[in-house]
Amino acid sequence: MSNGGTDRRIRLGMVGGGQGAFIGNVHRIAARLDDEYELVAGALSSDPQRAAASAREFGIDDERSYPDFADMAAAEAARDDGIDVVAVVTPNHLHHPIAKAFLDAGIHVICDKPLAVTSEQSRELIDAAKRANRILAVTYNYSGYPMIRQARAMVANGELGNIRLVQAEYVQDWLADAIEQTGQKQAAWRTDPAKSGAGGCIGDIGTHAYQLATFVTGLTLDSLCADLSCFVEGRRLDDNAALLLRFEGGAKGMLWASQVAVGNENSLSLRVYGDKGGLSWRQEAPNELWFTTLGGSAQRITRGGAGAGPEAGRVSRIPAGHPEGYLEAFASIYTEVAAAIRAHRDGMHVDADLVFPVGEDGLKGVVFVEAAVRSSEAGAGWVAV
Amino acid sequence: MSNGGTDRRIRLGMVGGGQGAFIGNVHRIAARLDDEYELVAGALSSDPQRAAASAREFGIDDERSYPDFADMAAAEAARDDGIDVVAVVTPNHLHHPIAKAFLDAGIHVICDKPLAVTSEQSRELIDAAKRANRILAVTYNYSGYPMIRQARAMVANGELGNIRLVQAEYVQDWLADAIEQTGQKQAAWRTDPAKSGAGGCIGDIGTHAYQLATFVTGLTLDSLCADLSCFVEGRRLDDNAALLLRFEGGAKGMLWASQVAVGNENSLSLRVYGDKGGLSWRQEAPNELWFTTLGGSAQRITRGGAGAGPEAGRVSRIPAGHPEGYLEAFASIYTEVAAAIRAHRDGMHVDADLVFPVGEDGLKGVVFVEAAVRSSEAGAGWVAV
Amino acid sequence: MSNGGTDRRIRLGMVGGGQGAFIGNVHRIAARLDDEYELVAGALSSDPQRAAASAREFGIDDERSYPDFADMAAAEAARDDGIDVVAVVTPNHLHHPIAKAFLDAGIHVICDKPLAVTSEQSRELIDAAKRANRILAVTYNYSGYPMIRQARAMVANGELGNIRLVQAEYVQDWLADAIEQTGQKQAAWRTDPAKSGAGGCIGDIGTHAYQLATFVTGLTLDSLCADLSCFVEGRRLDDNAALLLRFEGGAKGMLWASQVAVGNENSLSLRVYGDKGGLSWRQEAPNELWFTTLGGSAQRITRGGAGAGPEAGRVSRIPAGHPEGYLEAFASIYTEVAAAIRAHRDGMHVDADLVFPVGEDGLKGVVFVEAAVRSSEAGAGWVAV
Amino acid sequence: MSNGGTDRRIRLGMVGGGQGAFIGNVHRIAARLDDEYELVAGALSSDPQRAAASAREFGIDDERSYPDFADMAAAEAARDDGIDVVAVVTPNHLHHPIAKAFLDAGIHVICDKPLAVTSEQSRELIDAAKRANRILAVTYNYSGYPMIRQARAMVANGELGNIRLVQAEYVQDWLADAIEQTGQKQAAWRTDPAKSGAGGCIGDIGTHAYQLATFVTGLTLDSLCADLSCFVEGRRLDDNAALLLRFEGGAKGMLWASQVAVGNENSLSLRVYGDKGGLSWRQEAPNELWFTTLGGSAQRITRGGAGAGPEAGRVSRIPAGHPEGYLEAFASIYTEVAAAIRAHRDGMHVDADLVFPVGEDGLKGVVFVEAAVRSSEAGAGWVAV
Repeated sequence: MSNGGTDRRIRLGMVGGGQGAFIGNVHRIAARLDDEYELVAGALSSDPQRAAASAREFGIDDERSYPDFADMAAAEAARDDGIDVVAVVTPNHLHHPIAKAFLDAGIHVICDKPLAVTSEQSRELIDAAKRANRILAVTYNYSGYPMIRQARAMVANGELGNIRLVQAEYVQDWLADAIEQTGQKQAAWRTDPAKSGAGGCIGDIGTHAYQLATFVTGLTLDSLCADLSCFVEGRRLDDNAALLLRFEGGAKGMLWASQVAVGNENSLSLRVYGDKGGLSWRQEAPNELWFTTLGGSAQRITRGGAGAGPEAGRVSRIPAGHPEGYLEAFASIYTEVAAAIRAHRDGMHVDADLVFPVGEDGLKGVVFVEAAVRSSEAGAGWVAV
Repeated sequence: MSNGGTDRRIRLGMVGGGQGAFIGNVHRIAARLDDEYELVAGALSSDPQRAAASAREFGIDDERSYPDFADMAAAEAARDDGIDVVAVVTPNHLHHPIAKAFLDAGIHVICDKPLAVTSEQSRELIDAAKRANRILAVTYNYSGYPMIRQARAMVANGELGNIRLVQAEYVQDWLADAIEQTGQKQAAWRTDPAKSGAGGCIGDIGTHAYQLATFVTGLTLDSLCADLSCFVEGRRLDDNAALLLRFEGGAKGMLWASQVAVGNENSLSLRVYGDKGGLSWRQEAPNELWFTTLGGSAQRITRGGAGAGPEAGRVSRIPAGHPEGYLEAFASIYTEVAAAIRAHRDGMHVDADLVFPVGEDGLKGVVFVEAAVRSSEAGAGWVAV
Repeated sequence: MSNGGTDRRIRLGMVGGGQGAFIGNVHRIAARLDDEYELVAGALSSDPQRAAASAREFGIDDERSYPDFADMAAAEAARDDGIDVVAVVTPNHLHHPIAKAFLDAGIHVICDKPLAVTSEQSRELIDAAKRANRILAVTYNYSGYPMIRQARAMVANGELGNIRLVQAEYVQDWLADAIEQTGQKQAAWRTDPAKSGAGGCIGDIGTHAYQLATFVTGLTLDSLCADLSCFVEGRRLDDNAALLLRFEGGAKGMLWASQVAVGNENSLSLRVYGDKGGLSWRQEAPNELWFTTLGGSAQRITRGGAGAGPEAGRVSRIPAGHPEGYLEAFASIYTEVAAAIRAHRDGMHVDADLVFPVGEDGLKGVVFVEAAVRSSEAGAGWVAV
Repeated sequence: MSNGGTDRRIRLGMVGGGQGAFIGNVHRIAARLDDEYELVAGALSSDPQRAAASAREFGIDDERSYPDFADMAAAEAARDDGIDVVAVVTPNHLHHPIAKAFLDAGIHVICDKPLAVTSEQSRELIDAAKRANRILAVTYNYSGYPMIRQARAMVANGELGNIRLVQAEYVQDWLADAIEQTGQKQAAWRTDPAKSGAGGCIGDIGTHAYQLATFVTGLTLDSLCADLSCFVEGRRLDDNAALLLRFEGGAKGMLWASQVAVGNENSLSLRVYGDKGGLSWRQEAPNELWFTTLGGSAQRITRGGAGAGPEAGRVSRIPAGHPEGYLEAFASIYTEVAAAIRAHRDGMHVDADLVFPVGEDGLKGVVFVEAAVRSSEAGAGWVAV
C-alpha cells in the first residue's frame, strides 16, 4: 500500500469536518495513513471563524479555505493545482448538493454514507458521476476490513456452498437516553428527519450492516419486513430496527440495528451460513474470522495468519497478531480510491481488485432504508426492494 | 439441594427413554444428581425386548417393567409403593395420551417439552392435572441454569428498568444435511409432522428460546411475524425460523432458531435490554452473565461469584469458577419438582421460589409454535398470539 | 457410561464429608451421577451428632454410621454386604491413617488429593494397596475432563511433535485476605501446616496443575526452581507459588499457582507446545480445546464435536454444545474406578483405557510439593525431583 | 491529538527502513497518523540503489537521500531546514553509532528498541543526549496503548492496592522452525548475536513484556532467575525465556517470552494483582482492560467507554467500540515525542503527561537482557539487576 513518483500525493479537499467533528477527523486520518493524499483545500464549516481556524489547524492555505462548497468547487476546478478529489463529510441532507457540485466541476468525490437522503437524489449523483466520468466513492468503511475481504473471497470461492442464511447486526447504546435534547450535536442531527432523512437508526447504522451483508455474500435483496421502533420519548426517528430479509435465490436473513441496546458500543457483526460452511465476524474483534465447514472444527482465521488470502493481504499492513482496527479499514477505502484516481488519470482501467463502494452501492443503501421505512409505516408488512 | 428422612427418595417411573435414547438418559441423570429420586418402574420402549433389557440395565425390577404406559399407570396407581411421579420422554405426539393416563391415575407428571402437539391437547392436560390435583411439570430445562435465574431476578428487581428489547437465539447445525433420510432416528422423528407436530425447528428449539425469553423477562407475547424455511430438500418441516416479536407493553423482540447454521452446536443465547441496563447470556458459557448499566462498564457476574444472588445460589452446587453445565441445570428442574412433590404430600403450599415450568408454560410454548406456523403459512404476516 | 445386572451398584462408604463439607458433597454427586455407586456406610464427622445427622440425610442406616474410621473399616470388612470401596474426604493429614486402615481391611480406597502429607506416607499407602491387592485411586479430578483426555491422546499420537514447552496455571483469589483468621473453616485447615502439610497453595492447587501437565504430556519432571511466597500477613503457608520446570528429555515449563490473584476464581489452565503443534485448555471453558499446527489456523475442538476422539467420548455424556462441567469430570473418575472395581471383582485385568489417577500419581504430587518447598527454602534454587 | 500553526509538521529523517523493511514502514505510518511529521531525509539502506528508490517512493528529495548516516547527520545539521529528529530503525547493533552521531549533531533521536546492544553503549547514549540537550526516545511501542495507560493510572491511583504479583508474557511462534537458515531476513539478523546482541527472544520480545510490566506497575526489578532455551537446532540465540522476578518492596513476578510456542502470533499480555484488585490486558484485544476488585465482579473497561480515564483518552482517537490497534499505539508514542520536541523548541518544560519511553527506559531494557543472559549462563540462578 504505497504510492511513488514525484507529485506523489493526491490533492484532497474536504467539505464539512471542521474542528471537533468526529467523522471529518476519521477521514483525514484515513487519507493520511497510507501517504496517498495531501489535504490542500476545504470548506470546513458553515461558521466562517471555525472554518478558518480549522483550515489553519489542518495546514490548508488561507486562500484555499472557502466559505462555501459552491465557491470551492468553482475555484478548485479553475486551478492548475486544484484538488483531485473532495471528501464530503457533512450531515446527510447536504451530501447531494455538495457531491453534485464537485462532480459537475469535474472533481472526484468521496462521500460519507448515506450517499443522499433519497433514492432519487442518489440516482442523480450516479448520473452526474457518469456524465462527468468521475469517481463517486461512498465510505461504507467496514467493507475495508481485511477479514471482511477474506469472507467475501471465501463466499465467492464457494467455500460456504450455496448461501442460506445471513444474520447481520449493528447495535449501540449511545441513544438509550434522549441526549439529543441536551445539546449533544452528533445526536441532534442524527435524530432530525430534516438532516438525516427518513431513517434514524436504520439509516445511520442499519445500512452499514446491510451493506456488509451484501458485500460479503454478493446476494441481492428481494424483499424485507421491517419493524422500526422509537423507544425514547420525544424522539423523531427510529432508534431500533428489526428486519426479516429475503434474498433472490432463496436465502433468508435477519438484521438488527439498535441505538438503545445498553451495553453495546459498536457491535457490528455478520454471520453467513451456506450448505457447506459458515462464517462469523465481529467488528470489535476485527482481525479474526471464524470459519466452520459442515462436520469440521471451527477455525480462527486471522489477518495475516494461515488461511488468510490475498484479498485480505491487499488491505493489510502489519503481521498477524498485531491488531489493525477501524482507522486502517477506513484508510484502505481511501487507498483504493487513490489507486482508482491514478488509473483514471493515466487513462487505465480500474483494477477489478479495487472493490471500494461506489454510487450504486450508496443507492442500494438508500433504497434499503426507504423500503424499511415503507414497510414499517405499513405495519411491518413485506415490501419488495 | 438435599433431601432427608427415611424413605428418602421419590419413586420415579419413566415412559420412553430406553437404551440409546438421548433425552431419557439425561432425565435419569437429572433425577439422580441431587439424590432426590429412585427410578423404580418404566415402560421404556415399544419394543418389548429393548424395554426389558433397558429396565434391567437401569435397575428396575422385572415386574415393574411394563409393556405399555396404560398398564403401567394402572398397576403403579394400585401399588402401595407405586411411583410418585412419571417422566414422559417419548416423541412429542405421545406426550398427551401418556401424561393424561398418569394424571388421571393420580400420579404426578414430568413431561419433556413440548407438552403436547396441539394447544387443545395441552389445555386438556392442564385440566387433567387440575382435576387430579397433581403436578404437571414441563422440562424447559434451560430455565434451570443459575445465571438464567439470576437474570430473571435482576429483571424483576428493576435493575434493567423497563424492558425494551429481547433478542433470543437457538441455533444448531446438525440438520444441515438430510440426515433424516439416512436412518438417523433422532432426526427422523423430529422432521416427521406426525410425530413432532406442525413445527420442526421452531418447535424443537425455537420454543426453548421463547420460553427462556419470557421466563427471564416476565413479558407476555402479543403478536409475532414468522418466516419459517425449509432449506434441506425433501424435508417436511421447517429447519430455520426467523421471527419478529411484539410484547404487551411495547417491548420488541427477535427470535432466530436454526438447525442448518453450520458451525453452531447448541448456541442458545438471550440478550435483554431495558432503559437502564442490559443482560447477555449464552448457554455454551452458562456460568457467566453479562450486565451493563447505562453509562457503566460491562460486568461479568459468575455463578457463585460476586453479584450473584440467592436465586442463582438456590440452583447451584459448587463454588464459582468450577463450571456447572447442562445436566446440573436439568437436575435443578427435577429437584424443584421433588420439593413440590414433598410439599404436596405434606399438604403444604408449594414454595414460591420453585419456579420450574408447569403445564401453563407448556401450553404457551405450543401456542407460540402454532402462531408461528400460522404466520408463516400466511406469508409471514403478523398474527396475534 | 452405565452399569448393569442385579446388585448393580457398588457399595460405597465415606470418611469425612459430613453436612456442609464442600468436597464430601462433590464426591457423593460424582459417585451418583453415572449410577455406579450406592452410599451405604460412613464415618462422616468427628462430631457424633453431626455424623449421625449427616448419615440420616444421606440415607445411611444408623447401624452403618460409625463414630470413627477404624471401627468402620473393621465392621464393614466383617459384613457380607460390606462396602466395596471407601472415599476419604477429610483434611489432608488424616488421609494416610484412614486409607491405610481400609486397605489393610481389604477395602478399595478413593482418596482425595493429596494422597498424604509426606512422600513417606504416600509410599506406605502404595505398599499397603499392593499388599492387599486393592485399588488406591486419587481424585486428581481435573484429569477426568473430556478435553484433557483429548489433549493427552493428541500428545500421545504425536500431533504436537516433540514437546518443548508446558505452561500450567491454577490461580484463585479466595485467600487474598486473611480469612482463615475469621473462622472460615476451609481456609483455616488449608493454611494450617499441621493439617495441610508443608505446602499451602502449592499443595492445595499447584499440585493439580502439575498433575494435569504430566497427565497430558506424559513427561517426567527432572528438576524445579520454586519461589513460594506468603503475601498475607500472619499466614503460615505459601499463598503464591512461581516455578520453573525442567523435564527429562529437554522440555521446559513454568507453573504458577496463586490464591491471592484478585479476579480469578478457579483459573486452571494448561498450554503445551511441541515442534509441530500447540494446545491450550482452560478449566473455566472446559468443553473446548484449542489446537494449532505449525503454519495452520487455530482450531477449536469441542467435546462431542468434530475432531474429538474416543478418549474424550469415553468420559462424555451429552452432545457437543451442551456443556459438561466440574461434576461430570469428577464423576468420570468415579466411574472409571467403578469399572476397575468390577474388573477386580471378576478377576479380570483393568482396561488400559481406565486412566484414573492412582497411588503412584498421588506420590508424584507429594514429591513435587516437597521439592518445591525444599527449593524455596533454599532461596529458590534448582532441586532435582 | 493535533498540531497547528504554520510550518506545522516536524521534519523527520530516517536511518534504515528502506523498501520492504517491516519496522521502517510502521515508523512512517506512526509518524504520519496524527499529522505531526513530514519525512524529508533519509539514509534508508546500505544498498545505494535501494536507498535511492526508497527515498523516491517515500517522497524524499534526491539531495536528502544519503548514502550513510554520518553524512546525513552532518548535512542535515548544517541545513536551515534540517531535520528536527531522526528515527533509527536498523538492526540492533547499529543503534548506538547512529543515535550517537545524530545526538552529537544536535538532532533529536527516536530509536527503535533495544536502545543498544550493551548497557555500556546505552549509558553513552543517555550521556550524549544529556550533553546535547536533546530528546532520546525509545519506541517501546506497546506502552502507547490506551488501556495500558489506563492500567498505569489505576495502579498509580491505588485502585489495586499494594502490588503483589506481575505476570507478563510475550509469545510468538514464527521461529518454531529454523527459518533463519532459509534466507528469511528478519529471522536471520534476529538470531545473529553480532546483530542482535546477547539476547535472542529475551531481547527481541521479552524486553517488551518487561518494559510493559514496569511501565504499568512503576515497580523496580530487584533480581531475576532466567532459564533461556534454544529449542531449534543450530540456532545461536535463545528462542524461549522463562523468568522468575523479584521486585523491590516484595512483589513477585513471572515472565515468559517465546518464539516457538506454536499457535501464538503476538500474544503479549500483562496481569497485575494487588491486595485490593487485579488487572488483565492482552495485546490481541487491546481495547479492553479487565479489572476486578477483591470481592467484586470482573469489569470490562473499554477504550473510550465508561471507566476509562483521561490517561487513556489522551492517546485515543475514536469512540469506544471502534477498535484502535498497533499502529495507533505506535503513533501515540510519535505524537508524544512531537509534543516534547515542540516544548523543547519553545524552551518549555515537557508536560508530565508525556510518558513516552526515553533513554533510561532503553537502558533498563538492556540491563534486563544482560541480567537474564548472565543468570541463564550461570545455570538459571538468581542475579541482582
